[in-house]
Amino acid sequence: MDKKAVCGKQSLSFDRPVYITESASVVGTKEGEGPLGNLFDMVGEDDLFGAHTWEEAESSLQKDALYLAIGKARLQPADIRYLFAGDLLGQSIASSFGLLSYQIPLFGLFGACSTCGEGLGLGAMAVHAGFAQHVACVTSSHFASAEKEFRFPLDYGTQRPLSASWTVTGSGAFILSAKQQGTQRARAKITGMTSGKIIDYGIKDSMNMGCCMAPAAADTICQNFIDFNRKPEDYDKIITGDLGQIGQKALLDLLRDKGYDIDAQHTDCGIEIYDAKEQDTHAGGSGCGCAASVLSAYILRQLEQNVWKRVLFVPTGALMSKTSYNEGQTVPGIAHAVVLEA
Amino acid sequence: MDKKAVCGKQSLSFDRPVYITESASVVGTKEGEGPLGNLFDMVGEDDLFGAHTWEEAESSLQKDALYLAIGKARLQPADIRYLFAGDLLGQSIASSFGLLSYQIPLFGLFGACSTCGEGLGLGAMAVHAGFAQHVACVTSSHFASAEKEFRFPLDYGTQRPLSASWTVTGSGAFILSAKQQGTQRARAKITGMTSGKIIDYGIKDSMNMGCCMAPAAADTICQNFIDFNRKPEDYDKIITGDLGQIGQKALLDLLRDKGYDIDAQHTDCGIEIYDAKEQDTHAGGSGCGCAASVLSAYILRQLEQNVWKRVLFVPTGALMSKTSYNEGQTVPGIAHAVVLEA
Repeated sequence: MDKKAVCGKQSLSFDRPVYITESASVVGTKEGEGPLGNLFDMVGEDDLFGAHTWEEAESSLQKDALYLAIGKARLQPADIRYLFAGDLLGQSIASSFGLLSYQIPLFGLFGACSTCGEGLGLGAMAVHAGFAQHVACVTSSHFASAEKEFRFPLDYGTQRPLSASWTVTGSGAFILSAKQQGTQRARAKITGMTSGKIIDYGIKDSMNMGCCMAPAAADTICQNFIDFNRKPEDYDKIITGDLGQIGQKALLDLLRDKGYDIDAQHTDCGIEIYDAKEQDTHAGGSGCGCAASVLSAYILRQLEQNVWKRVLFVPTGALMSKTSYNEGQTVPGIAHAVVLEA
Repeated sequence: MDKKAVCGKQSLSFDRPVYITESASVVGTKEGEGPLGNLFDMVGEDDLFGAHTWEEAESSLQKDALYLAIGKARLQPADIRYLFAGDLLGQSIASSFGLLSYQIPLFGLFGACSTCGEGLGLGAMAVHAGFAQHVACVTSSHFASAEKEFRFPLDYGTQRPLSASWTVTGSGAFILSAKQQGTQRARAKITGMTSGKIIDYGIKDSMNMGCCMAPAAADTICQNFIDFNRKPEDYDKIITGDLGQIGQKALLDLLRDKGYDIDAQHTDCGIEIYDAKEQDTHAGGSGCGCAASVLSAYILRQLEQNVWKRVLFVPTGALMSKTSYNEGQTVPGIAHAVVLEA
């Protein structure tokens, strides 16, 4: 075992940090109109992005985000040794068709909306171990393809409870590298990770994903504190993926029960990306693309500008499908954390 | 970069091999009646495995296979640092619900029927890098849950063309370890891997998955020869996942075009697992559980008994969903290869 890297029960600590050399975000119109709107690299003119179907549109989000990230890093696709990618659609078709043309070896992932954290973790492991000079991590979601996959046809105009979240139309792509290249600044470095377990509190309400995922987020964050022997104050921010307003309350309560108060540090990508009242997005944003696009556009920017020095980034996923829901299964959660430093 | 490990464009070579300490296979009735029937660790009495739905039945396959593998390795679940797992169902629900109770950090994967190769590769990378003493890789498929996911309700009794394959009801679980423990023999060692790219020859016939996946298998096998500077004769066997009879012909033709004749070395898990004529399985077996259960029950046994010294194991996946099929998309393939030695 690499005793320097292995850290507690579920974590790895990277003494040689892995650099997020570059990243890019591509989002839809609603996200462009939100509070982070002018920070995204590309905002679509309409949510079809020139495609014929919502699924193709989501593929084009991934294709464009990766294209921009590789370009910004001044690399060629052939410089990227591995892709770590996934999305929410059945059999991950947004990734398969979006990344096909790059001809880079692909590790397909499924961690629901936690996929961005899973990909950054596995990518960092590959780079830290010296298996690659550069890898790329890509994830996406699309409001319309997700509604079709999980809920009702858009044309029904179904009413949504206030606990429901709004799937973000967006993609984030990240280039992880072993060393900073020449004079180029990296956006941030990954100095550790805490991999999540599936946590099931028996909640079955798929219209309240925040509460389904909060126990997993609490478990991973708590384990991170234990493994790294840290307190909430050791992070400038602790940022979950898509718990939204209601999930946030559940998370803060759960962590208080475990003896940690993270009220001052916590925010959530799903809360940051929309103005919930003005934009009618109820509990907040969700989807693989939520955490990924907010990380690229907002969180890495704050780290670059030294506003924050150390952030715990915790994408959260709800493990369910139409079938598991219809069969009366619970909605367990999973959360993968990555430690980001300026 | 770890110059000893990085091998050519898409491969890794492990100077310190990663051991497959133990493994287990659990299959359904039809697989139990096939030519490998008496080699599997457990054959279900009926294909519901005591569950109420086909999806739950598939989850129980994974749960049981991992339970057996951990037990055979004389370990406890807490000794396993990471799980690498996936299946064919939308949002990988067979894995989520099957592995929930183990409470082991999970990296969820999707590589269609190549997932067993993807998991063994990523697991071997984690162990070789020293990030874990033991990891487990688990995959599954179930005939009935797959038909429901991808095709027609079983009750329709739909006719199938001769090029169609039969999804294997089965699961394989593998414990990868950094060192052989004490006196215990490992089943085999992983000495290298070649990660696959998505390959799309524009084939749209989801009832001929073998031909959809053959180009990806050819690409990965060819790249393995180049990266390791090997010839077909350097392997006792080259074993694809689930190309079946028709896909096998396509693979052998494609490789001949590239200058490699693997007729003497090649076989396919989907061909081995059923007696196609007697069991009416048409082109052969398929599914994540096909490659995984045949690897555990048959391939590792041949390596253990020194019948074969070195095998190239190449699980193959067809990247499609009901939605991509209905939208007229092609069926691209991907294949991840693992080098196994006695």
